[in-house]
Amino acid sequence: MVSNLMPKSDFGYKVHGDPFSTNTRRVLAVLLEKGLSYEPITVDLKTGEHKSEAFLSLNPFGQVPVFEDGNVKLCAITQYIAYVHSTRGTQLLNFQSHKTMATLTMWMEIEAHQFDPLASILTWEQVIKPIYGLETDHAVVEENEGSLEKVLDVYEKRLGESRFLACNTFTLVDLHHLPNIQYLLGSSMEKMLENRPKVRMWVDEITGREACKMVCDQEMSWYGISG
Amino acid sequence: MVSNLMPKSDFGYKVHGDPFSTNTRRVLAVLLEKGLSYEPITVDLKTGEHKSEAFLSLNPFGQVPVFEDGNVKLCAITQYIAYVHSTRGTQLLNFQSHKTMATLTMWMEIEAHQFDPLASILTWEQVIKPIYGLETDHAVVEENEGSLEKVLDVYEKRLGESRFLACNTFTLVDLHHLPNIQYLLGSSMEKMLENRPKVRMWVDEITGREACKMVCDQEMSWYGISG
Repeated sequence: MVSNLMPKSDFGYKVHGDPFSTNTRRVLAVLLEKGLSYEPITVDLKTGEHKSEAFLSLNPFGQVPVFEDGNVKLCAITQYIAYVHSTRGTQLLNFQSHKTMATLTMWMEIEAHQFDPLASILTWEQVIKPIYGLETDHAVVEENEGSLEKVLDVYEKRLGESRFLACNTFTLVDLHHLPNIQYLLGSSMEKMLENRPKVRMWVDEITGREACKMVCDQEMSWYGISG
Repeated sequence: MVSNLMPKSDFGYKVHGDPFSTNTRRVLAVLLEKGLSYEPITVDLKTGEHKSEAFLSLNPFGQVPVFEDGNVKLCAITQYIAYVHSTRGTQLLNFQSHKTMATLTMWMEIEAHQFDPLASILTWEQVIKPIYGLETDHAVVEENEGSLEKVLDVYEKRLGESRFLACNTFTLVDLHHLPNIQYLLGSSMEKMLENRPKVRMWVDEITGREACKMVCDQEMSWYGISG
């Protein structure tokens, strides 16, 4: 396979995380879109390693991922990378005008407060719980699917006005949706897309990006294998 | 009283909200810092007006506040106003470099995901519930106070490196903390500040801003009275 991704540069970045975690996957997608290499350091969430003394010294909030840029240790990383490397790789922000940037930040909030909480529960119930040998709670799935459908109705309308959520180009807003959407394509998401052609087209487009496909592949995303 | 705030300009903005809601108060604080007037339109949360057909046509997510800028109707508003009016009034973002902007966005996330969820529960239990005639759950207060103390330990360290959370000037990050801090100063917050001198100094500084004091005063903030 010949990669369409740009050649990688090494800034000595380290990512402490779990390649199954959606927050870790968001960071990997940004690094891949930007052509940045990184050293992956696995934090074992199953044994609670993210609450260990050693990990808390990296991130006092006890959450993955943590991004190390020299002496700087960061959580909430995707915007950081997108700003610092704004002239490199895929342009994930939109500096065209303050108004477009404002629209982008608004849609970041909508993803964080409307989409992600519901989608994360659905991912947990239907994808992660089975991996951990736990039982899916179908009542919880049904309730959250109902709520997520209403959010996607708003997306269907928005995607009739704009090719991507923030503007007519792919941005961090679309990227932030990817890990949950990729997990849910085998379950909840399929039926939700049936009557929402604009959302369907958007999902196909964003999940079709090479960087995004790589993030799906645990081996490729975490160990940065390309080529 | 002679106001130190800049003279107001009228862009025909409307704010649909509730002057007691912390999210509405954040928007009012930004408008005051920027010297922007607005028409206040009260949405009665107690009677569930935010779930009415009329309100859902403004914001399909059914949450206050909604900001109207001509034909544009927006939720997630503070960044929008700060970007669109970046050259006016208090500079609430920091465009010095992409790196400072990146740090600012990281701290916005920390407020949204670490501080706000805990502080909002404490505000609800200790301030809003009594207004509604409901009983405070002291076990919930105790648990959330314990968690918030750990977050404030991180803030204490950060405020030893930087005068404000994102950088050495007051930004949107500090402003976002205000409504909950103002509500909690009579309860949880006081004892938390006792052993955290840096946080204490920061709280005094941000709550001492004229725009912030006005937001505390329901009449002044909602009806925009200044003089």
